[in-house]
Amino acid sequence: MRFVIIGANAAGMSAASRGKRNDPDMEVVVLEQTNDVSYSACGMPYNVADPNRSMDDLVVRRAEVFRDKQNIDLRLGHSAEAIDRENKKVVGTTSQGEGFEIAYDKLAIATGGRPIIVDVSGKDLPGVMALKTLGDGRRLKDYMARQGVRHALILGMGYIGLEMAEALHAIGVRTEMAKIRPRLLPWMPEPMSDLIKAELEDKGVTLHFGSGVAKIEQQSSGHGLKAHIGNGNELSVDMVLMGVGLRPNSEIAADAGLELGPGAAIAVDKTLRTSDPDIYAAGDCADTFNVITGRRVWVPLALRANRAGWAVADNVTGIKVELPGIVGTAVFKVMDLEVARAGLTLEEARDAGFDPVENSVKTRSRAHSHPGNQTIHVNMIGDRKTGRLLGTQMVGKEGVAHRIDAVAVALHAGMSVADFVQCDMAYAPPFSPVWDPLLTAGNQLLRRMS
Amino acid sequence: MRFVIIGANAAGMSAASRGKRNDPDMEVVVLEQTNDVSYSACGMPYNVADPNRSMDDLVVRRAEVFRDKQNIDLRLGHSAEAIDRENKKVVGTTSQGEGFEIAYDKLAIATGGRPIIVDVSGKDLPGVMALKTLGDGRRLKDYMARQGVRHALILGMGYIGLEMAEALHAIGVRTEMAKIRPRLLPWMPEPMSDLIKAELEDKGVTLHFGSGVAKIEQQSSGHGLKAHIGNGNELSVDMVLMGVGLRPNSEIAADAGLELGPGAAIAVDKTLRTSDPDIYAAGDCADTFNVITGRRVWVPLALRANRAGWAVADNVTGIKVELPGIVGTAVFKVMDLEVARAGLTLEEARDAGFDPVENSVKTRSRAHSHPGNQTIHVNMIGDRKTGRLLGTQMVGKEGVAHRIDAVAVALHAGMSVADFVQCDMAYAPPFSPVWDPLLTAGNQLLRRMS
Repeated sequence: MRFVIIGANAAGMSAASRGKRNDPDMEVVVLEQTNDVSYSACGMPYNVADPNRSMDDLVVRRAEVFRDKQNIDLRLGHSAEAIDRENKKVVGTTSQGEGFEIAYDKLAIATGGRPIIVDVSGKDLPGVMALKTLGDGRRLKDYMARQGVRHALILGMGYIGLEMAEALHAIGVRTEMAKIRPRLLPWMPEPMSDLIKAELEDKGVTLHFGSGVAKIEQQSSGHGLKAHIGNGNELSVDMVLMGVGLRPNSEIAADAGLELGPGAAIAVDKTLRTSDPDIYAAGDCADTFNVITGRRVWVPLALRANRAGWAVADNVTGIKVELPGIVGTAVFKVMDLEVARAGLTLEEARDAGFDPVENSVKTRSRAHSHPGNQTIHVNMIGDRKTGRLLGTQMVGKEGVAHRIDAVAVALHAGMSVADFVQCDMAYAPPFSPVWDPLLTAGNQLLRRMS
Repeated sequence: MRFVIIGANAAGMSAASRGKRNDPDMEVVVLEQTNDVSYSACGMPYNVADPNRSMDDLVVRRAEVFRDKQNIDLRLGHSAEAIDRENKKVVGTTSQGEGFEIAYDKLAIATGGRPIIVDVSGKDLPGVMALKTLGDGRRLKDYMARQGVRHALILGMGYIGLEMAEALHAIGVRTEMAKIRPRLLPWMPEPMSDLIKAELEDKGVTLHFGSGVAKIEQQSSGHGLKAHIGNGNELSVDMVLMGVGLRPNSEIAADAGLELGPGAAIAVDKTLRTSDPDIYAAGDCADTFNVITGRRVWVPLALRANRAGWAVADNVTGIKVELPGIVGTAVFKVMDLEVARAGLTLEEARDAGFDPVENSVKTRSRAHSHPGNQTIHVNMIGDRKTGRLLGTQMVGKEGVAHRIDAVAVALHAGMSVADFVQCDMAYAPPFSPVWDPLLTAGNQLLRRMS
């Protein structure tokens, strides 16, 4: 039996490794169009923040290890271009320009996603960058070093944009950010989103709202770029980073007639199978289910990709696995703030047919009178009809990142707010008030729900 | 209706405040033998670590606030000595030596616990201290300042002993610790317990195992103490702290014929009612249920006390509340280590009739190659028969304290290990590897369970 995988990053190599572990006799072939495999893409902003480190430090396992120790047939520079479902083969071209064909018994598509490049004049100029692959990371870091970038514009204010703002600030690059919509993080209540805005501005980042990029030009001096971001605003910068979002690399699946789901990601069932019983899809190119709403969603995040890769391998090797899906957990750091969410926002909950109630509390990260105490903001959402916990968003200088996991577990368990506030949470003065911020948020939400 | 409460700390004042909020017309009388109310007892070691702070900083709400703003009849210096159940009244003596009697419609016993004082010769010498009440804290801090304590012996290696070792180390007091049993923390696997041992020794704390105190004497010079701790070991120290454990203040209940549970704590049902339908008990003097085993347990911790106080008030005012109980969550800091647990140990699980399997993993606190990465040790326990998650213990320099709450929630939900590892945990490079330490622990445990 031959298991072919298209794409050699998180989902692809998780599937390959686990496939070989489950069944050492199975032939596992991985087709990767670049020469990079298995790296921590999420680490790139932090790598940019340290000019002394090489982007290649982010490689988790090298190609030779997969080949020599794990006996995986890993083919670099192999760009898959089409899936011939009738004859069960993948057709493509190598980086040397040679065509190739490979037959599969089972196929996994793990082609990932790519950054959305705003379609404006100047988008192809040198200095207009994106950050998704390790190749992007190398190019960006090389460009910054070579050109001595001192002033940058980031388009978009998503996770990557915000992490890059922190990275650029850390190395003394003057940073501006622009987005079309009026609010920094539309998925949390405005007062909480404003805290992040204030933190960025406090650190010297200039934020432009209601500002889409209209045009990017080379400066007449030949050095640097001029970005037109609406309202007659022209910014003279050394670099423009496109951070407005991702798009799934699902074209190869669509061309083969496989069904697509939300965001044009490849539609898969809970076993990660596409509409073709011999083809699976995993990672940023595929969709998943939201456990709370039961609906299909597209959430391109790393844990989901790794987990889906494993599940594909299990199902391909006869271990039947169903993944329940995600609850919408995310965390990131913006300068000195930790920001996290799990579950639905008020709007998402309404859209999904719940009768949601939300409540925000401002509480403390440590016990009464404990030194180093910081403010923690928690917004919690519950369903008035069923009492169920629906979601939580948090911001604070400490104690946010790991706390959100308690909410994530409760959401997976379908817990009510009333049951959640009875949980035996950890307390010690350096780590929490007696009533953990999550319990205080839950207790106050309960009163509002009744 | 008159609601009388004996004891004015966590459980007592939670019951009083919530009772008044639920029913402003109810007469609420609190009898407190000391002059201290509503303070953060858990903060005392951290207060000892800062000689510039007063112990009174730990007061959360002053007596006048309860009296004037909340209209609670708070009677300080009122020591309750007996409960006359037949006539529904409490009998006692004031600090002025006058007898008093007060009738109740509903009574709550919230008398707390007291430190176990090892019954050896010299236990009453000046310089032999304990730490439970705010009065204890003031005495200890005054004594240390007055006598210029430079060298201390802590008997016992429980939470308070360990937190006090950190506090004393922080202010340059040479610290030794002694316990009778051979292992520092018997509730975690020995290699993990040894990490805490190594951390203490590394910071200069001398640990004596297999060493109970046999005798404490005044030094012949009249200054300082000599402690005999077995094996012919004599320590010359300025202070001995009794940190060998707590005992519930349940005598007043026992004398009134109320049922006692494990550890001689007052037995209460899930509504916090004792064996007398008009008498409730809450806090360190009362027992609770372990959600995992369904058994009665005595766990004197602060969150449980506050929560029980609220539940008593709700039930007294006609809002029927049942508390499910605890899952055995605890966290503390020892020097640079965070230590946490939730659920059962292997031995506890076996005792409770499970067929437990445990597995320890050593993983990282942050993403691959992220700066500042620390080791996290996780021991996880599951039930082979049912697949259920039973417990987790963790040690590490960061990322332990709040992570344990995810386990606590899973234990409350009765989740299986297989379901737990499918939870959508938060990931960002500064906070976690892609596979959170809890997920790695769960994934490896699952393999061992199958």
